Amino acid sequence: MPAPFVARRRVEFCETDMAGIVHFSNFFRYMEFAEQAFLRSRGLTVAWQDGNRRVGFPRVSASCDYIKPVRFEDLLEIAVTVAEVGNKSVTYSFAFTCGGDPVANGKITAVCCQSSDSGSMESITIPDDIRAKFAK
Amino acid sequence: MPAPFVARRRVEFCETDMAGIVHFSNFFRYMEFAEQAFLRSRGLTVAWQDGNRRVGFPRVSASCDYIKPVRFEDLLEIAVTVAEVGNKSVTYSFAFTCGGDPVANGKITAVCCQSSDSGSMESITIPDDIRAKFAK
Amino acid sequence: MPAPFVARRRVEFCETDMAGIVHFSNFFRYMEFAEQAFLRSRGLTVAWQDGNRRVGFPRVSASCDYIKPVRFEDLLEIAVTVAEVGNKSVTYSFAFTCGGDPVANGKITAVCCQSSDSGSMESITIPDDIRAKFAK
Amino acid sequence: MPAPFVARRRVEFCETDMAGIVHFSNFFRYMEFAEQAFLRSRGLTVAWQDGNRRVGFPRVSASCDYIKPVRFEDLLEIAVTVAEVGNKSVTYSFAFTCGGDPVANGKITAVCCQSSDSGSMESITIPDDIRAKFAK
Repeated sequence: MPAPFVARRRVEFCETDMAGIVHFSNFFRYMEFAEQAFLRSRGLTVAWQDGNRRVGFPRVSASCDYIKPVRFEDLLEIAVTVAEVGNKSVTYSFAFTCGGDPVANGKITAVCCQSSDSGSMESITIPDDIRAKFAK
Repeated sequence: MPAPFVARRRVEFCETDMAGIVHFSNFFRYMEFAEQAFLRSRGLTVAWQDGNRRVGFPRVSASCDYIKPVRFEDLLEIAVTVAEVGNKSVTYSFAFTCGGDPVANGKITAVCCQSSDSGSMESITIPDDIRAKFAK
Repeated sequence: MPAPFVARRRVEFCETDMAGIVHFSNFFRYMEFAEQAFLRSRGLTVAWQDGNRRVGFPRVSASCDYIKPVRFEDLLEIAVTVAEVGNKSVTYSFAFTCGGDPVANGKITAVCCQSSDSGSMESITIPDDIRAKFAK
Repeated sequence: MPAPFVARRRVEFCETDMAGIVHFSNFFRYMEFAEQAFLRSRGLTVAWQDGNRRVGFPRVSASCDYIKPVRFEDLLEIAVTVAEVGNKSVTYSFAFTCGGDPVANGKITAVCCQSSDSGSMESITIPDDIRAKFAK
């Protein structure tokens, strides 16, 4: 199995809450941050224009288990694994560590969708060239 | 079974993303918003000072399944159910609807913790007076 | 002078930071929240589709002076005044109070713009029907 | 005059709004991000514990002028200048560029404060060792 892609990120002041720790909702932003960095490393992105249709990966589910609190200026390492590529969807796993200690584990499933100017969204089969880049 | 507590909230402009829909991470903030409103309705809160110790409910897990995209100025109804009260933890379920249509379902498990001035956090048994208010 | 429009909003847990107070950046979200409520009260909105063009009010400047810290569950009152309506722009003033005490004052200037599908943005004269509603 | 400190940051998906551009409120988070990186480069931080008092730099004013919209995955350069160090306060200027083009200019004034466990906040003279690091 190839080594997972790892994104690094330092905790910002505005990401903490009055309990003195990172607000739990920010881990979902961190996951997307890591996903975007991973996609960029494969020549992909999370939303793009294909002629006159817009294609993207809206989420159908997201979850996170929190192991240890994380604080201002902590340096997070976020390992991204493509857990599954389905016909229309992709599932990522995220393992958060800080100084080598596991601090959280997350998962996101996203579905490939195209949207029209009218705003309607429709799921589509992941195009072959994109699928190939996930599998790389 | 008693009717669940319902919190209402209108989608704000800053909560949308370039796909024209609410960013998925905001549903976790909406859940906390609904949880806080629920707790307030029971005479409780999510973080407080008890003498020289601080008590709160940091999250150990959070998840959301997304059914339908939600857009700017949509009015969300968020039904809060206390799914389980354990010795040290509480689990909430959240059912999001918009105009009567289900749009998302979420779950949060939080653990009762006290923290000292040094910043350490320790899980504790949910105090009886608080437990009684959950059960009401 | 007519009484200003007042929006109300309770401080949420996720809006606080590790200093135990509302993070300063959230006051800009609060201003937009109050602006949207004000616009809705006039039958207006902050972004809309007009045939195949999208019209909106991107900001050209924003500022805030902070008088007193605000904390979790504080109830904010945000008074909105239309300070100036220019040919293409509108300036709002926001006076934040909490329990009657001034806590912050802000200002936002926004310019009426249309954007095409290609993503380009262009400032336009504020349409007469919209101008009339501001002046009401 | 020494070259200003420059922080770099790529625009994230969750920072965009339905107009397809970075939401204006995020520039204030970007400024704080750049301030933190600047402070770190001087061996300083934005909030710390000094024995049993907590010291920090809450903001008394913040402003931003927006020149050009910024979009997903754009790479921002944020030049930080210490514009003024007063007895109790410090003012930073921030110049945002993207691909060499100016996109925004901001300013933040923060006051050195200590807070007690009771939550009260009091402005204090900036300690000499900290002042020396600003001036470096």
